[in-house]
Amino acid sequence: MTDNKTWSGRFNEPVAELVKKYTGSIDFDKRLAKWDIQGSLAHAQMLQQAGVLSAEDLAAIEQGMAEIIAEIEVGKMPWLLDLEDVHMNIERRLTDKIGDAGKRLHTGRSRNDQVATDIRLWLRDEITEIQALLQSLQAALLDLAEQNAEVVMPGFTHLQVAQPVSFGHHMLAYVEMLGRDHERMADCRRRVNRMPLGAAALAGTTYPIRRETTAQLLGFEQICQNSLDAVSDRDFAIEFTAAASLVMIHLSRLSEELILWMSPRFGFIDIADRFCTGSSIMPQKKNPDVPELVRGKSGRVIGHLTGLMMLMKSQPLAYNKDNQEDKEPLFDTVDTLIDTLRIYADMMRGVTVKPENMRAAVMQGFATATDLADYLVKKGMPFRDSHEVVALAVRHADRAGVDLSELPLEDLQSFSDLINEDVYNVLTPEGSLNARNHLGGTAPEQVRRQVARWRALIAG
Amino acid sequence: MTDNKTWSGRFNEPVAELVKKYTGSIDFDKRLAKWDIQGSLAHAQMLQQAGVLSAEDLAAIEQGMAEIIAEIEVGKMPWLLDLEDVHMNIERRLTDKIGDAGKRLHTGRSRNDQVATDIRLWLRDEITEIQALLQSLQAALLDLAEQNAEVVMPGFTHLQVAQPVSFGHHMLAYVEMLGRDHERMADCRRRVNRMPLGAAALAGTTYPIRRETTAQLLGFEQICQNSLDAVSDRDFAIEFTAAASLVMIHLSRLSEELILWMSPRFGFIDIADRFCTGSSIMPQKKNPDVPELVRGKSGRVIGHLTGLMMLMKSQPLAYNKDNQEDKEPLFDTVDTLIDTLRIYADMMRGVTVKPENMRAAVMQGFATATDLADYLVKKGMPFRDSHEVVALAVRHADRAGVDLSELPLEDLQSFSDLINEDVYNVLTPEGSLNARNHLGGTAPEQVRRQVARWRALIAG
Amino acid sequence: MTDNKTWSGRFNEPVAELVKKYTGSIDFDKRLAKWDIQGSLAHAQMLQQAGVLSAEDLAAIEQGMAEIIAEIEVGKMPWLLDLEDVHMNIERRLTDKIGDAGKRLHTGRSRNDQVATDIRLWLRDEITEIQALLQSLQAALLDLAEQNAEVVMPGFTHLQVAQPVSFGHHMLAYVEMLGRDHERMADCRRRVNRMPLGAAALAGTTYPIRRETTAQLLGFEQICQNSLDAVSDRDFAIEFTAAASLVMIHLSRLSEELILWMSPRFGFIDIADRFCTGSSIMPQKKNPDVPELVRGKSGRVIGHLTGLMMLMKSQPLAYNKDNQEDKEPLFDTVDTLIDTLRIYADMMRGVTVKPENMRAAVMQGFATATDLADYLVKKGMPFRDSHEVVALAVRHADRAGVDLSELPLEDLQSFSDLINEDVYNVLTPEGSLNARNHLGGTAPEQVRRQVARWRALIAG
Amino acid sequence: MTDNKTWSGRFNEPVAELVKKYTGSIDFDKRLAKWDIQGSLAHAQMLQQAGVLSAEDLAAIEQGMAEIIAEIEVGKMPWLLDLEDVHMNIERRLTDKIGDAGKRLHTGRSRNDQVATDIRLWLRDEITEIQALLQSLQAALLDLAEQNAEVVMPGFTHLQVAQPVSFGHHMLAYVEMLGRDHERMADCRRRVNRMPLGAAALAGTTYPIRRETTAQLLGFEQICQNSLDAVSDRDFAIEFTAAASLVMIHLSRLSEELILWMSPRFGFIDIADRFCTGSSIMPQKKNPDVPELVRGKSGRVIGHLTGLMMLMKSQPLAYNKDNQEDKEPLFDTVDTLIDTLRIYADMMRGVTVKPENMRAAVMQGFATATDLADYLVKKGMPFRDSHEVVALAVRHADRAGVDLSELPLEDLQSFSDLINEDVYNVLTPEGSLNARNHLGGTAPEQVRRQVARWRALIAG
Repeated sequence: MTDNKTWSGRFNEPVAELVKKYTGSIDFDKRLAKWDIQGSLAHAQMLQQAGVLSAEDLAAIEQGMAEIIAEIEVGKMPWLLDLEDVHMNIERRLTDKIGDAGKRLHTGRSRNDQVATDIRLWLRDEITEIQALLQSLQAALLDLAEQNAEVVMPGFTHLQVAQPVSFGHHMLAYVEMLGRDHERMADCRRRVNRMPLGAAALAGTTYPIRRETTAQLLGFEQICQNSLDAVSDRDFAIEFTAAASLVMIHLSRLSEELILWMSPRFGFIDIADRFCTGSSIMPQKKNPDVPELVRGKSGRVIGHLTGLMMLMKSQPLAYNKDNQEDKEPLFDTVDTLIDTLRIYADMMRGVTVKPENMRAAVMQGFATATDLADYLVKKGMPFRDSHEVVALAVRHADRAGVDLSELPLEDLQSFSDLINEDVYNVLTPEGSLNARNHLGGTAPEQVRRQVARWRALIAG
Repeated sequence: MTDNKTWSGRFNEPVAELVKKYTGSIDFDKRLAKWDIQGSLAHAQMLQQAGVLSAEDLAAIEQGMAEIIAEIEVGKMPWLLDLEDVHMNIERRLTDKIGDAGKRLHTGRSRNDQVATDIRLWLRDEITEIQALLQSLQAALLDLAEQNAEVVMPGFTHLQVAQPVSFGHHMLAYVEMLGRDHERMADCRRRVNRMPLGAAALAGTTYPIRRETTAQLLGFEQICQNSLDAVSDRDFAIEFTAAASLVMIHLSRLSEELILWMSPRFGFIDIADRFCTGSSIMPQKKNPDVPELVRGKSGRVIGHLTGLMMLMKSQPLAYNKDNQEDKEPLFDTVDTLIDTLRIYADMMRGVTVKPENMRAAVMQGFATATDLADYLVKKGMPFRDSHEVVALAVRHADRAGVDLSELPLEDLQSFSDLINEDVYNVLTPEGSLNARNHLGGTAPEQVRRQVARWRALIAG
Repeated sequence: MTDNKTWSGRFNEPVAELVKKYTGSIDFDKRLAKWDIQGSLAHAQMLQQAGVLSAEDLAAIEQGMAEIIAEIEVGKMPWLLDLEDVHMNIERRLTDKIGDAGKRLHTGRSRNDQVATDIRLWLRDEITEIQALLQSLQAALLDLAEQNAEVVMPGFTHLQVAQPVSFGHHMLAYVEMLGRDHERMADCRRRVNRMPLGAAALAGTTYPIRRETTAQLLGFEQICQNSLDAVSDRDFAIEFTAAASLVMIHLSRLSEELILWMSPRFGFIDIADRFCTGSSIMPQKKNPDVPELVRGKSGRVIGHLTGLMMLMKSQPLAYNKDNQEDKEPLFDTVDTLIDTLRIYADMMRGVTVKPENMRAAVMQGFATATDLADYLVKKGMPFRDSHEVVALAVRHADRAGVDLSELPLEDLQSFSDLINEDVYNVLTPEGSLNARNHLGGTAPEQVRRQVARWRALIAG
Repeated sequence: MTDNKTWSGRFNEPVAELVKKYTGSIDFDKRLAKWDIQGSLAHAQMLQQAGVLSAEDLAAIEQGMAEIIAEIEVGKMPWLLDLEDVHMNIERRLTDKIGDAGKRLHTGRSRNDQVATDIRLWLRDEITEIQALLQSLQAALLDLAEQNAEVVMPGFTHLQVAQPVSFGHHMLAYVEMLGRDHERMADCRRRVNRMPLGAAALAGTTYPIRRETTAQLLGFEQICQNSLDAVSDRDFAIEFTAAASLVMIHLSRLSEELILWMSPRFGFIDIADRFCTGSSIMPQKKNPDVPELVRGKSGRVIGHLTGLMMLMKSQPLAYNKDNQEDKEPLFDTVDTLIDTLRIYADMMRGVTVKPENMRAAVMQGFATATDLADYLVKKGMPFRDSHEVVALAVRHADRAGVDLSELPLEDLQSFSDLINEDVYNVLTPEGSLNARNHLGGTAPEQVRRQVARWRALIAG
């Protein structure tokens, strides 16, 4: 087995089989193959330009890599645990194909800067896809918002009825959250898009490398300025996972609401059958499995964040093997996020809104009490006093089992003689909605403006 | 595809393919097949005893299950994503083989109590193995402790030299930690070993089930006393993962020490080549990969704990689909823990101790300063005063670049006239070690007693 | 300031003020004073019995400590940041009072084993209180369960109506959870109740200490068997915080349900005004603040757990200053848990149940569909077939906008000719409840049995 | 007490004392007073401009608030638990002073948008300070880097000697990390600096508010565009705490290194006495308490992050009382971060470097093996072959107990006849250092360039 190991010269005994399995990463890091080859090709081009590699060697490397890519695509590339990881597997395969030129590829770099480069190249692409998926989900929500700008539902605080809101306005709250998520992904991508290659093992290299060249070939915006930092930095993985955790938290909140709204106790929406499953024992069941799983998967991603932070805590410089443990949580975070965003955009397009149930719910809970208080203030009463007056009126209506709008005028007037017949205009849900017609308010006009604003932003 | 779904009667459209993939668990829960069948067989036996199932049906089920087990063993069992999970796959396979008797198996139970039972049966077995592996690692440490009872090393606090300790004594500290881990696993196992079966979907069943019978057949110590709790409880998974996290924390601590000790700056130990790897670029390197990975994997397990807690937080009763997300972290926790314990016991047997380096390190750092202080106290000086006297002596020796034991008597006496020639007896590392000869102390005699005590405990 | 520091002999400059504040713990660890003194008195008694301390010194120490206790009680004890921590403050105060005898107290121990002892003594007492509070909350839930054994509510899975359950049965699910919490606290307490004292700084001591004596005086069940482990072990803090996290998770689940149930969309319960607050702007609001805060505080405690695990990860032996960071999260966990349990027991006694709303909700959602399926099975149909039949019947009833029990017999018979007039007996919620009359089932008779079982357990 | 509650009209019984304590936030949120008043003054100005408030009322409010500020400064402001929180305390105090004008202040806003505004105003200021402190620590590290550009130390990977690096280069790695932290704080600050005020309780308000005016008065860059999102969003708190966690992780890494380096086993540095403490029992000890505590406190901050994420997970819109639990972890994160950065910058200026010990350590571990491999490559050998040759040479030297540079030429030549006398030029640490003279490499020239680059950036 000795000859399979590129670092075996000073070792007296081969690595134990259990150890190979425990320390090997090929099972999961082979998904980086495409980006590993991309990085190697740029490195080889640079070495040739710098005079370290001959034109013939470069040509051979390019030819060999093309063959390997083809093999990977058809599933013919042999991945060997004895070769530890994706880097060694590809290099060995290359050397088997092209001989000494393959052995020269690793000049002026190390696996430490190589893997750091691979993972950044890969993550950069994934973030781009995540950003598109965030906008795709926003687009689905914007359609729902537009269609339901006039639909009135109870706005809750503390899950108690607070004030009427537009269902479209409610959807827009999530568009805002996802918009911030998109910003954070963009910010993170800038920091991902920096090139560690050239740091070699930890100190740089003695070869006349040209890092600007490699960076340009690979489309990196910046170059890591310190070799020790370059090989040991996993900030970008943590920052990305934290941003992903926030996306999942947002979706866990929307999921919670979908689950509530689809419960017969609310009955505000229905979710298309194709996103639900039934019960093996209860024939009547239709379960909102997807939002429930999303809610659960938020823990999964946050768990990965905890794990990654724990990983980096107290690590001395420079590279330590601990860092190999960054990949699985990162891969799983990306996969979970992409699958979840994709299914969520589909699912939101399969939501049926039930406006009559929402409106009925608005009428239970004195949703326009604040409007009555504001009415009194506009007639001259200080806010704190009007608040107290309305509280008493609510208690009265509650005992009578009716909404404020159902109280006779004389009853209302018994709480304040500032109240006149015109009070009934402010006590309807629609009146309440339309009265909040300012930037950020719930009036349907504002909802439509926000839809237009967001569509322009996404298109932009 | 409709006919593949056992709950499809009230649904108007099939589940989307993406949703099937997102909500299906067969990819990972098929590892529960053995325990699922074990549970089903006990359930069927009970149903037959209760008169719900005929003897012929039971015989058919037993025959069919035997065939399925054989198919699984040779990898011929077809696992279909359309059938969602391990339970449906096995039941459908059974029905394909034996017809209506297979359809009768699910009488008086639900997937909710079935999966809860499976996972407890599985985890119970895994904990038993983990307990054995904990003791196996303890045994390796006990051998090291016994062999090195007399080996003196610097005991550190704050990574500063504090007092001499026996290397055997140091190993025993980890034996204690693993002993507590074993206790916690045993405590957790008691709570795992309770049977949810019989809770059905959430409320129990209308069939005349006999839960005591099933529990006895399956070797459960107790029966879950409340059906709602039985199907929604995942405490046992959280408690297990917390206990596993503590094991990993302990091993992260030992790993940190192995890494330090193997660094040329310490040079206290060597780890056999078969547990180490080299560098792709630095030919001289021999890296302690295994302890580094273990240190990193502690974050992985703690991340799973965070995820599981997040999962359960604020879940209303009874079963929610969120709970499906309990399996992957739990499976990975078990796998990580078992692999890590196994490799660690092997690796500790591959540790070579370098006593001369350890002793040399004891001589740098005034390790016997406390012994000098105690010497003065025994001659009548209050402890706080002797502490101050010794601090001044240390400053003097430090400036002279010598150990306390290397100061001439007159120098020592200049700090206190209580000091006589006999002081040099307490200033050697061996003298210091042997002087701490009480329960829990570092004296070699105590080390040997603890080794004997632990061997008896493990054998017991 | 030099003379305030007991370790200052070898130092050339005083500690910076900012450093004193950063490293000092007196602000928070003074709450350990009572247990610190308790430990010191037992240590002194032991030293006297061992002949290390004179009877006069012991008497002086006891007298001095009595004065200090009195000073603390009336708030006259001066706590000085210059003296770092509670141990040094008390020792200095003692020495100020009784002179050299005070300086002799620290013989044969170190702050490392002293603080470990203090915190275990303190936590042992707190766990005892927590156990009592857990049972007090269980008692409140048992009363609710007994009063509402016959009250039928919809049992939910996936927040969809699943099957009817007894509200009392639902309360009992939480009694079970709290019962496991009580078990875990008891298990943890056993591991807390072990004495580190005698480990001294890290290696034991040269004095002829008698650890069995001190342990007996302090009521410890066991003695820590390894000095290095004794001073660096914080397992007990992590295990306790994990157990506390599970309590908080359970209460977060109950809180989620209380919040849902008190929402007008459910209207299942009301919570007494004294546990609720209102809104500064919406006069009609009555918000379930307490359960919401409990839900939020579950994150707080789990955050402490994460922090403590992070703290211990990769720490080399023996004591490191990092460990000082164990106290604040541990103190806050205990305080949060005790306050929460106390307020929760009160609050549950302030819950008003609204049975008519619960029953009305049962009638929406085909809660007895499983009962119909079971009915068919008992007439000879295989379960899987009956499941399909009922699914079609539910779809029919859903479209007709009625419950299964409201379908005419001919309609029901159109799905299966096994259905007769007696089917209506199994389609009522009460029939469904009473039919689940086995161990763990939801039948009122079972609820009352469980109440009796638990009352006996708690009394026992 | 009823009249102390502004929302008490519909309540039948006062809030229980225990509940007041449990739900009140005045103990910790009074630190927001300054920003609460700042927000109220801007709100009042806007209301006056919008014609909602009279000029007289505004003047009275401004006068009253000025008095309250003065009272707070001299500690005369009475903070009452009965008034729950900082907002109600200040409003009540204002009303006591100026009567009805005070009651009119709360027009067009709610505590929900008020507290969200306060916390953003406060955090914005704190981030500004944190950014300055990050740069101050960078400045201290840059000085160290410049002074030690030529100091050679062993660069470690896996804590094994890898290649020589400049100590200055090593310091610069942390300058890079802190630079990314500064970027993240700036990104986060942009998202903090958005105004929720105007969202009122959750839906906006019926008053003709002018949000652009208030935003301008308060210096907000943007305005929250959706009222539901505005009152329930805590992304900014989570994003900030995640960014703070990364700072702490970086400092935990540097702390780990300082602790290692100060251990006698390394002896690379000393830390000034004023940042260290001693032992109560071991007179020779000088402990690196500050870095140890920082390492420990990284867990504290990450624990807060976990808690905050747990808090937000699955919360339905809009405001829930859970959110009150955001403050204490956020406050403590800010305090911990600010104290830690401040003390760290001081401490780094108190670090003494011991170049001779570092250089001695470089000579143990074959640090220039890679240089030998590169030497062979430059003579024509493929890298992978040279790697193997050097590995064998290292094994030979290791057995002989000498460094590669100490092997006689004939010994070296026995491994490859490409080796000549000039090989000794590449085998010195200084030669190795200077050979890595490219962007990001460890050559002293590069170190000085980076110092200059960073100083310009910080000055900029």
